[in-house]
Amino acid sequence: MDDDSSSRIVRELRRWIETAPAGARLPSNRALMARHGAGPVTVQKAMRQLIGLGLVESRPGVGTFVRSIRGPRVADYGWQTAALGAPHRRLALSSTQRTVAPDAIGLHSGYPARDLLPERLVRAALARAARSEAAMTRTPAAGHPELQAWFAAELAAAAPAGVTAAAPRDALVVAGSPSGLSSIFRAVVGPGRPLLIESPTYWGAILAAEQAAVELVPIPSGPAGPDPEELDRALARTGSRAFYAQPTFANPDGAQWPAALGPAVLDVVRRRGAFLVEDDWAHDLAIDADPHPVAALDDDGHVIYLRSLTKSVSPAVRVAAVIARGPARERILADRAAESMYVSGVLQAAALDVVTQPGWRGHLRALRPQLRARRDLLGQSLDRHAPAARVEHRPLGGLNLWVRLPEGTDVEGVVRDCQTHGLIVAAGTEWFPAEPAGPFIRLNYAGEHPDRFDEAARILGRVLDDAGRSGGG
Amino acid sequence: MDDDSSSRIVRELRRWIETAPAGARLPSNRALMARHGAGPVTVQKAMRQLIGLGLVESRPGVGTFVRSIRGPRVADYGWQTAALGAPHRRLALSSTQRTVAPDAIGLHSGYPARDLLPERLVRAALARAARSEAAMTRTPAAGHPELQAWFAAELAAAAPAGVTAAAPRDALVVAGSPSGLSSIFRAVVGPGRPLLIESPTYWGAILAAEQAAVELVPIPSGPAGPDPEELDRALARTGSRAFYAQPTFANPDGAQWPAALGPAVLDVVRRRGAFLVEDDWAHDLAIDADPHPVAALDDDGHVIYLRSLTKSVSPAVRVAAVIARGPARERILADRAAESMYVSGVLQAAALDVVTQPGWRGHLRALRPQLRARRDLLGQSLDRHAPAARVEHRPLGGLNLWVRLPEGTDVEGVVRDCQTHGLIVAAGTEWFPAEPAGPFIRLNYAGEHPDRFDEAARILGRVLDDAGRSGGG
Repeated sequence: MDDDSSSRIVRELRRWIETAPAGARLPSNRALMARHGAGPVTVQKAMRQLIGLGLVESRPGVGTFVRSIRGPRVADYGWQTAALGAPHRRLALSSTQRTVAPDAIGLHSGYPARDLLPERLVRAALARAARSEAAMTRTPAAGHPELQAWFAAELAAAAPAGVTAAAPRDALVVAGSPSGLSSIFRAVVGPGRPLLIESPTYWGAILAAEQAAVELVPIPSGPAGPDPEELDRALARTGSRAFYAQPTFANPDGAQWPAALGPAVLDVVRRRGAFLVEDDWAHDLAIDADPHPVAALDDDGHVIYLRSLTKSVSPAVRVAAVIARGPARERILADRAAESMYVSGVLQAAALDVVTQPGWRGHLRALRPQLRARRDLLGQSLDRHAPAARVEHRPLGGLNLWVRLPEGTDVEGVVRDCQTHGLIVAAGTEWFPAEPAGPFIRLNYAGEHPDRFDEAARILGRVLDDAGRSGGG
Repeated sequence: MDDDSSSRIVRELRRWIETAPAGARLPSNRALMARHGAGPVTVQKAMRQLIGLGLVESRPGVGTFVRSIRGPRVADYGWQTAALGAPHRRLALSSTQRTVAPDAIGLHSGYPARDLLPERLVRAALARAARSEAAMTRTPAAGHPELQAWFAAELAAAAPAGVTAAAPRDALVVAGSPSGLSSIFRAVVGPGRPLLIESPTYWGAILAAEQAAVELVPIPSGPAGPDPEELDRALARTGSRAFYAQPTFANPDGAQWPAALGPAVLDVVRRRGAFLVEDDWAHDLAIDADPHPVAALDDDGHVIYLRSLTKSVSPAVRVAAVIARGPARERILADRAAESMYVSGVLQAAALDVVTQPGWRGHLRALRPQLRARRDLLGQSLDRHAPAARVEHRPLGGLNLWVRLPEGTDVEGVVRDCQTHGLIVAAGTEWFPAEPAGPFIRLNYAGEHPDRFDEAARILGRVLDDAGRSGGG
């Protein structure tokens, strides 16, 4: 009778457990006694059976619970789908961040090869930082004061007479460009509000803007830069208060705005009471022209300026600065402090050490001809082996060729086919905040060894030939 | 006649310039000629006069503009007020981040003194990292794989038999706790949606939540932790999908949840299809109890776990990990990648080096009695010299005493008066997501030299005496 009773309890509970979520609490022994008209011994026996079957677990003083492991377990996170809902925005790792097979030819990344970096300076600086105060202390939220002063002085050196130069406190040290952009977009634009943005432009800026949930308004741009009148109309039409741009050696096409465009754009944003967010990412990566930051012309806080050292010092020294004035500075600093509190003092000390060494200027001087040679070699390889891939604008600086493919080319298909043949390239799609204006790929001439450029161009040439044939067939 | 004409033009333009915004473009020479019936020479003369007066500047090929500098310049960023609008949320630097006069007694900060850090290990690790691959290369967005594995193994070691432990890929390396919290709140809660949060709790979590624009729903907590039934009702009432808590050595009071509370809270979030965001900030700062992460009991992805090394390794080695599974992991990783792309490999290599040295365990063992002695010394000093300041719960770990002041005390006034006498303390107000539940201050016993505890307590005692007298007078 007792046996029967306990079996009945076990049977009923097993049916319930089959559909119960892992971790669900079983009815108390008292409740089971009442329900089945059974005594405590019977109920305890049933429980021991369920525990023995591995179906439940008892936590003394808390209760008995459906075990979350039943035999060899396949994790099911399906419940999260309801908890999380549909994502607000597509956030994905960029294809430029992919790690690839070691024997593949990588023209996709956004970074320079190690031999283009001041390795000796970086290692010595990090070693010194390891011995310094910076290794064991906290840094102010706005940054290492001497590094702030260096960033401000670099910009001030470009300011014409009569313009009040950026002050050290205007420079906020951040952990790389994306961190700076995220804070600028959150603090200065805000969720749901419009941000004007060059198109095409740096995918990281597009991603940061999407993360900040701002509404993107593309402004067509290219080698000649954006049209100030179009910018003016877009500011008026959308009520936007900010325009993101890369006037110097833009990513992807390496172009520089014509000399008169910077002042003209500054004039537009001044009249419209708006900000220019100037991303001077390639300041140290000049080839055939010198950088002239628009921010150097500004002294009313209309330009929020971003300069990074990640690509010219080392990817491991993730240090950049946002230079902003007035209330915008305060808002950006408050956002940074909430987001990450401060940037490691070791990295800041090392960055400052590198850029204040006598070897730094020499390194930058030596870098120019190296970038030029690489740019020209890849261009020549393409001319020879992939004539259908056209570089419409020879970059004046930066790391990349922006390559137009024949009209109607399936860009994603080309990227896939190249990968099959051991060549990794980045689809141009990622550089457009909306639909791409044409079939583009971006090729980094600074990351891969130039010995492999010919092979890369041959693969691309064959893939484009095949794509052309199948497109026409 | 020419002179008269050009003077007239100058006069009219000066009136216009007085009210024009800096950077405004002047009418073209052609327009001025037409308007004033003057010849080109007259207009050019007027322009030269205005330039000579420093009122305008000419940019060849672009136009003539109102100069933004007029004599000794006071920058006016007033225009930004309209562009930025009112802030969505109060974001401010915490008082715990203040830099103070070197002779002041600082009990306000959230960091341990340098002699409580493994300085020798940290410096050696940073020096090795400076010589390693990590110094010159990029790190994957999710983190250095070996460091991911270490964080996962630490949590897995606490998992009872039968629970599927966290895997290395579940651990995402981030640049400190605030970065992790910001991404969790953005990715898992989202703007405008409710987040349940212990009250009082870590001000950095409150700040990160406000930055993520989530709606805070305080859940009363304290030495006994939150009431699971209250949590259950709040989840049901608000439809919230996440609860932020510090079950182990909570900041501010250093308490640990009772053994049964973790499973009970896990049960509640499981039944409600919600997440527990467990901030295990003081895992390495145990004194009288061992940490038992709730996350170790979870294998359905209900707990998102955060562990930081900033306070136990070095403030300069800003490395933490978020351990999450399922779609939540993917969303958090995507948010991190958009926000900062990756964490410096130098810091990750150094952190991994420190925590895998034989000296690390020894350091943690030696740390316990040091923290205990400091905690007890500060407690005794308060008993002796500031009896009105009551430590209701002796912390089991962490760095702080949570001190209740007499009912009705003006906390901000006490903080100010202490500062006047050279003692810096943190107002408890910052630890409450809504109105404070009482007059509290937080005192860090781990940052200042214990030799100064008596003096600190004497200052606080006198300030409280004065406050009591003036309150009663």
